[in-house]
Amino acid sequence: MLDARHGAANDRRIEALLLHHEIETFNGAYAAALDEQRLMDWVEMFTDDASYVVISRENADRGMPVGLIYCENKGMIFDRAFALEKTTMFAPRYLRHIIGNLQVLAEEENGDIRARANYVVLQVLFDRPEAKLHQVGVYYDRFRRAGDQLKLAERRCVYDSLLVDNALCIPV
Amino acid sequence: MLDARHGAANDRRIEALLLHHEIETFNGAYAAALDEQRLMDWVEMFTDDASYVVISRENADRGMPVGLIYCENKGMIFDRAFALEKTTMFAPRYLRHIIGNLQVLAEEENGDIRARANYVVLQVLFDRPEAKLHQVGVYYDRFRRAGDQLKLAERRCVYDSLLVDNALCIPV
Amino acid sequence: MLDARHGAANDRRIEALLLHHEIETFNGAYAAALDEQRLMDWVEMFTDDASYVVISRENADRGMPVGLIYCENKGMIFDRAFALEKTTMFAPRYLRHIIGNLQVLAEEENGDIRARANYVVLQVLFDRPEAKLHQVGVYYDRFRRAGDQLKLAERRCVYDSLLVDNALCIPV
Repeated sequence: MLDARHGAANDRRIEALLLHHEIETFNGAYAAALDEQRLMDWVEMFTDDASYVVISRENADRGMPVGLIYCENKGMIFDRAFALEKTTMFAPRYLRHIIGNLQVLAEEENGDIRARANYVVLQVLFDRPEAKLHQVGVYYDRFRRAGDQLKLAERRCVYDSLLVDNALCIPV
Repeated sequence: MLDARHGAANDRRIEALLLHHEIETFNGAYAAALDEQRLMDWVEMFTDDASYVVISRENADRGMPVGLIYCENKGMIFDRAFALEKTTMFAPRYLRHIIGNLQVLAEEENGDIRARANYVVLQVLFDRPEAKLHQVGVYYDRFRRAGDQLKLAERRCVYDSLLVDNALCIPV
Repeated sequence: MLDARHGAANDRRIEALLLHHEIETFNGAYAAALDEQRLMDWVEMFTDDASYVVISRENADRGMPVGLIYCENKGMIFDRAFALEKTTMFAPRYLRHIIGNLQVLAEEENGDIRARANYVVLQVLFDRPEAKLHQVGVYYDRFRRAGDQLKLAERRCVYDSLLVDNALCIPV
């Protein structure tokens, strides 16, 4: 039989586990939206004031802000998605995200939750037969609760590769 | 102190989490059976009436049923495994599955559980020194409880690559 | 309403889940330490008497003990890390670990916990633009509780590739 003290410690561990699972579920849905090219569903996963940045590890390490993608609110994220949906370059490829090593880091004073996870994006271009590593990196995230859902208030994608293997700046 | 209502909501979340974990554990054991070439253990992870299909995303998207592998019951799954074990082509390779982004989708009326997960199969052929991406895709699954175990009543493996890098149709 | 018997079974499942999560969290922190080249943090994740081995699947399957890395206590692990930090060859690369398919296997008589997980290490070398598969394999682990933390008493990294793509023996 667990005593009350042990029980309270366990409750905290279970709460942490539920939050971890909630973010993992979010990341699974996020990956599915991008993999299935449902870009408008992807847009809805951000808060109105969300920041979404894709930047190289090289630039991130040196504090240089220039990135492949730089959106400072949901309107800019929408514009990015809208432009891609109109681009004939975007469709002819398959993408597949693997998101792993999720770490829930801290809860901030305003209730936002900081987390990180590693990601791999695999890509099949329609003029080549096999899957290739498109991008590898880490998400640095801030999640915010909106009703009974989580949304991204910030996702900063820092990728390792020095070059990205095509000119198109697709979201990851 | 949690009140009863909060407690009941939490119980449901914990139940969902336990089910998620149970399927993740299943997928871990599934991957290990294939990675260690224990094909007869792999066969036992399916129900008698199980469907097991490996099909390209291209064909799946167009509703075309032709796939690399098409088994409509456990007997056919067994035959596939048995044939591979007798094939000298199968052994000289190492396989390694990474299964991620598990999403438990819904419980059907008959109690079956629908889920999906992304997979990557990495392969080392014995005449080449390095690991390569063999196949990348998504599992669309239906799990069924059999006693205190889960079994697959359906696993539909939809792979992204346009070609698979060798003629042998190995299970994934 | 759950009865007491169901409750006790559930408690065991929740305990198993919490342990699984604890090890997953450990592996996330382990990966982050290596990916961010914080080798001294990595050293601290082992017990004083820890064994750390990196060996090919080929040699492991044949019971041959020769590996890329062979450390039989924390002092040797420290030496490895210290040597690498002094090596100008180590820095010019980015590494990214994806650890998946964690399976908690058993608790031994002395309380150690045996587990396994698949890993992929992706590498970007600074003279090549793109990420490559550096190493793919499986961790066979024994964890030990030290205060309120877990430490590795044993990590045996068995990699699939026949050759590792550079001469440097970096930890995985």
